[in-house]
Amino acid sequence: MTSYETPTNNLVGPLLTDLYQITMTYAHWKNKRHEEHSVFELFFRKNPFKGSFTLFCGLDEVVKHLHAFKFSQEDIDYLKSTPSLQHCDPGFFDYLLQLDCSKTQIQALPQGSLAFPRVPLVIVSGPLGVGQLLETTLLTLINYPSLLATNAARMVLRAHDHDNHRPQSADLPRQCQKQILCAEFGLRRAQGPDGGFSASKYAFVGLFAATSNVKAGKELGIPIVGTHAHAFVQSYLSLDEVQELTVANKNSGGQVNLLEKVLEYRDNKNGANLGEDFQKTNDGELAAFIAYACAFPDSFLCLVDTYDTVKSGLLNFCMVSLVLGDLGYTPKGIRLDSGDLAALSMACAHKFAELAKSQNRPFFHDLDIVASNDINEKTLVKLNQQGHAITLYGIGTNLVTCQAQPALGCVYKLVELNGKPRLKLSQEIAKVLIPGRKRAYRLFGKKEAPLLDLMVDADKDDPPEAGKPVLCRNPFQAMDRVMVTPSRVTLLHGVYFDGGKEALESVGSLQENRNLVKEQLGGVAGMGILDYEEPKQYPVMVSDNLYNFLHTMWQEQLPVPELS
Amino acid sequence: MTSYETPTNNLVGPLLTDLYQITMTYAHWKNKRHEEHSVFELFFRKNPFKGSFTLFCGLDEVVKHLHAFKFSQEDIDYLKSTPSLQHCDPGFFDYLLQLDCSKTQIQALPQGSLAFPRVPLVIVSGPLGVGQLLETTLLTLINYPSLLATNAARMVLRAHDHDNHRPQSADLPRQCQKQILCAEFGLRRAQGPDGGFSASKYAFVGLFAATSNVKAGKELGIPIVGTHAHAFVQSYLSLDEVQELTVANKNSGGQVNLLEKVLEYRDNKNGANLGEDFQKTNDGELAAFIAYACAFPDSFLCLVDTYDTVKSGLLNFCMVSLVLGDLGYTPKGIRLDSGDLAALSMACAHKFAELAKSQNRPFFHDLDIVASNDINEKTLVKLNQQGHAITLYGIGTNLVTCQAQPALGCVYKLVELNGKPRLKLSQEIAKVLIPGRKRAYRLFGKKEAPLLDLMVDADKDDPPEAGKPVLCRNPFQAMDRVMVTPSRVTLLHGVYFDGGKEALESVGSLQENRNLVKEQLGGVAGMGILDYEEPKQYPVMVSDNLYNFLHTMWQEQLPVPELS
Repeated sequence: MTSYETPTNNLVGPLLTDLYQITMTYAHWKNKRHEEHSVFELFFRKNPFKGSFTLFCGLDEVVKHLHAFKFSQEDIDYLKSTPSLQHCDPGFFDYLLQLDCSKTQIQALPQGSLAFPRVPLVIVSGPLGVGQLLETTLLTLINYPSLLATNAARMVLRAHDHDNHRPQSADLPRQCQKQILCAEFGLRRAQGPDGGFSASKYAFVGLFAATSNVKAGKELGIPIVGTHAHAFVQSYLSLDEVQELTVANKNSGGQVNLLEKVLEYRDNKNGANLGEDFQKTNDGELAAFIAYACAFPDSFLCLVDTYDTVKSGLLNFCMVSLVLGDLGYTPKGIRLDSGDLAALSMACAHKFAELAKSQNRPFFHDLDIVASNDINEKTLVKLNQQGHAITLYGIGTNLVTCQAQPALGCVYKLVELNGKPRLKLSQEIAKVLIPGRKRAYRLFGKKEAPLLDLMVDADKDDPPEAGKPVLCRNPFQAMDRVMVTPSRVTLLHGVYFDGGKEALESVGSLQENRNLVKEQLGGVAGMGILDYEEPKQYPVMVSDNLYNFLHTMWQEQLPVPELS
Repeated sequence: MTSYETPTNNLVGPLLTDLYQITMTYAHWKNKRHEEHSVFELFFRKNPFKGSFTLFCGLDEVVKHLHAFKFSQEDIDYLKSTPSLQHCDPGFFDYLLQLDCSKTQIQALPQGSLAFPRVPLVIVSGPLGVGQLLETTLLTLINYPSLLATNAARMVLRAHDHDNHRPQSADLPRQCQKQILCAEFGLRRAQGPDGGFSASKYAFVGLFAATSNVKAGKELGIPIVGTHAHAFVQSYLSLDEVQELTVANKNSGGQVNLLEKVLEYRDNKNGANLGEDFQKTNDGELAAFIAYACAFPDSFLCLVDTYDTVKSGLLNFCMVSLVLGDLGYTPKGIRLDSGDLAALSMACAHKFAELAKSQNRPFFHDLDIVASNDINEKTLVKLNQQGHAITLYGIGTNLVTCQAQPALGCVYKLVELNGKPRLKLSQEIAKVLIPGRKRAYRLFGKKEAPLLDLMVDADKDDPPEAGKPVLCRNPFQAMDRVMVTPSRVTLLHGVYFDGGKEALESVGSLQENRNLVKEQLGGVAGMGILDYEEPKQYPVMVSDNLYNFLHTMWQEQLPVPELS
C-alpha cells in the first residue's frame, strides 16, 4: 500500500464544499440513488483572457483530496447541528461517516496539458453520492490553478515576443539580447496565504522561473529571488551609518572598508574619472547600497528608483559595483519599480555599456535589469514595442489576481447516470451539454503539430488511428466537418485515481508538469494559437456518431418554440 | 498565560514572506541595526472600487501570526540551503532561530472599522529586524480581507438601495417589500481553498447574511445555505423515478405518496383548477422537485430555471408546494440562476400572489426568491432600476474575485527609525509618505456623525478634545484647512498585540466585528460617502504641527528640479 500526501492546505476536506452538494446527496440517498453509477465531466466553455488556449493545473491537489476524502465525527456532528440538515434521517449521517472514494475513478488530462473548450479536464466516475460531493472542491482546486498557469504562460510568451521586436544593431546593449525571464512577486496581493502559495506553484508550472515566496520555495523547490525594497533604502539617511562596514577582498584577502573605496570613485581620487554627476547622488541611498553590498557582495542587486533612477540610483549602484569588481566580486544588477520602464532600462543599459568600456569592466554587460510595478500582458506588449533592455520581470498583482479575467468558469456536469446519457437543455446554445461518456483524442498532422481534439462516444466509436481517415464534426454547426487522416493519435485522459488503488498515471513533479507545458506550447508554436492579437482558434470536434446522437437527443428533448 | 489561537491556515508562518524581507533583515543584522527601534505603518492610498470607504479586516489572523511567529529548525535549514543566502554569516541563522515578537507591538483599527486613505490600518513598533520580516505576511493577511469585506458591504448597500426604488402600490407582490439579504456562493471561483474560506469569513463581517461554504460554517459559525443545482434536476428524467417516494402528513400523520398528490393538482382531479399550463411542464424537473420535497419538506426551495422558468420550473414548484402546504409544511421559495432576473422574479412573484389568493394559501406571499448568476454591484443597481421581487442574492464570482478591482494596494512603510522620522520622497505626490510616529482620531460633529479623521504628531501634539477648536489641514494642499470643534473625539488605534503579553484590546468575534460594520456604516449614512455614483470623499487631515513638519522635511530633502 502506497501512502499518499494529504492536501497542502488544512482547510481541504469533504466540508470544503457548498452546502447544496450535501443537501443534494441527501435527496439522492433518500431516494436510494446515491450508489447509482454516475459520470461527471469538469470542463470550461471558453478560454480565458480572450485567448485560444488554457493550461490544465490543480490535478495534484485533486488526487490528494480524493485519497484523503473522509468525514470526521466532528464534521458529522456539525452537519447534524445545522438547521438545514436537522430533519435529515440519522442513517444519512452514518452513510456519510463511512464514505470514501474507494469506488470513484478520476480520469484527467496530465497536469500542464494544453486544454481546449468542452474537452473534459477531469472525468469523475463512480457512485452518484460521492460524485456530487466532490463538485465544489474539485472546481475550487482546478479553477484558479488552471487560470493562473495560463496567465503565467501568456506573460512568458509576451516577454519572449521581445525577440521579434529587437532591432538588429551592433550598438545594442548586451541586456537587450538576453533571454528574458519572469519571476512571481504576488504573495501580498493574492487572496490570502493559499492564493499566494498556489500562484507561486502554478506560475512555476506555467514557465515562470522563480518566486519571491519563501514558503513556496521551501515546500515546492521553486527557485526563490529577492533583494531589497524601498524601505531598506529609506532606512539609511547618511553615509555616517555605514562608516564601519567592511567586505572581504577576494583577490588579496583582508577586509576592506567599502565606503572609503566608494568615495575614491565618487571624489575621483583614483583616476576613474566618473564625472560630476556621480557626486550629486543621494547619500542615504548610497549608504543603503554599501550596506547591502557588505551583506551580499556575491549577489549585489539594487533597487535604484527610490529617489531618482538615472541621477541617483543607477550611479550609486555603479560606484559600489566598481568597488566590488575591484575586490573580485561580480555584481548582479538593478531593479526598476517605477517610471517609464522601457526608457529607464535603455538608459541604464547604455550606462552599463559605457562603463564596461570606459572602466574596462566587462561584467557591466552581463548585469540584469529587473523590472516590476504593475506589469501585465498589455504592458509587456507595449514594452516590446517601445524597445527595452529588461532581462527579468517581477510580476505580482496582475499575475496573481488574473486581473484581466479573475475567474475561470469551469463547470462540473452530470453526463451519464446508470448508463444513460444526461442532457442539460438550454435556450443558450453555448450552455448545451455534450451528453454521455466520451473519449477524447488529440490528432496530429504530418508536421507533428496537433490538428484538432476529437471527442468520440466511449461505447460506440472505435478509437481514431494513425493513417486512417476519420470524419470530425463541429458539434454545433452541421456544415463544419472535416475528414482527417492523422499521422499520430494520443488518448488525452489518463487514470489518476482509481478507488485509492495504485493509479495508472502519476501527476508527476512540478518540474515534469513544467516540462510538459514547454513541450506542448512548443508543439503549437507558429500555429497562431498562442498569439496575443486575434489568436487562431484550435478546433475541438466530435465523431459523426456523437454528432448524430447529440442532435437526436436535442430534437427529442428540446421543445420546439411556439409562435402565436 | 493566555493561550492563543494559531493561524487558520497552516501555510502562515515566518516563511510565508518575500525573500527580500529576509535578505534585508540580514543586511540590517550585518550592520547591527536589527535591534533598532522602528515604526512601520500599513495603509492604503486609495479606496477601492472608485468608492469613498474601506472596511478594515484581517486583524484576527495578524494577531495569531504574531503570537505564533517562530522559525523552526527546518525553516532555518531550508534558508541556509538556498543559493541566495548561502554566503550569510551563520550567526544570522542563530538570530533567526531565537526570534519572536516579544519586543513588537501592534496598534490597529478595530476589525470592521471604516478606514480611509493614509490613516494607518496597523502600526508595527519594535525591532527593525522583526518589523521588516512581518511586512509581506501582514499585507497578505490584510489586503484581501479588507478588500473583500468592502466589496461585500458595497453589494449589501446596493441590494438595500432597492428600498429607494420600490414603487408604492397596493398590488405589489409581498416579495418586493421584504428586507433583502445577500449570501456568499463563491468558493469555487476563489483563489483556492483559503481564498474561498477568507471570502466567506470577511463577507460575513461585511454584512452578508450567510455562506454556502460548509467549512466556513463549521469553523466560524456563519449560517450556511444551499439547496440544489441543475445537476440534481438533470439527474431525473421521468416521473417513474419518484413513484415510491413518500412524505409524512404533518396534519393527520401517516405517509403520503407525493407524486400521486401532485398529479391530482396537475390533472385537475382535486378541483384546484390550476389550468392547462401546469400540464405542459418538464416531467424530469417535476420528478426532481418531488424527490427534493421528500428529502426537505420543511425547507423546500427549488432551482427553477433548468428548462424554462416560467413555463416549467415555476409551475412545477407551485404544484409541489401546494401539496406540501396541504400536508402542513411551509415551502421556502425558488432560485433563479439565468435570464432576466428582474422580469423573471416579478413574473414568479405575481404567480405567487395569484395562487395565494386563488388557492387561499397565504404562504405563497412569504416565499423567498433567490437570484444568482454573475451578480455584481452594477447588476444590483440595474436590477433596482428595472424593479424586481428578489429577496435574497447569492453572489459568487464577483464577490470573491472583487472583479471590479481584484487587489487592494496596501503598503507598509517605515516612518520612524531610532526616534527619527523617515521620509520616502517621490516625484509622485500621491506616493509621498507622511513621516514620523502619529496618532489618529475621528472627530464627530453635533449630529454624532463623523466629520473627519485627524492625524497628529504622537510626541508634539496634544490630543484633540471635545469642545475645543483644533486646526485641521490637508497635508498636500496649503489652502485646504478647517477649524473644527468636535462634539466627541475617539482615538482610532488600539493595542492588539504587545510582545505576546495580554494586549489591551481583543479583536472580538466575527459577530462583534460585523456589528461594528453595521454601526459605523449607519453612522455615516446620509453623508454621501456610501453612494454608488460620485460618492463624497471623507476628509483625512493632519494637525498644523504635522503639516509644518512634513513641509519642512520636503523642502529640505526633495531636490529642486532644475530647468536648463
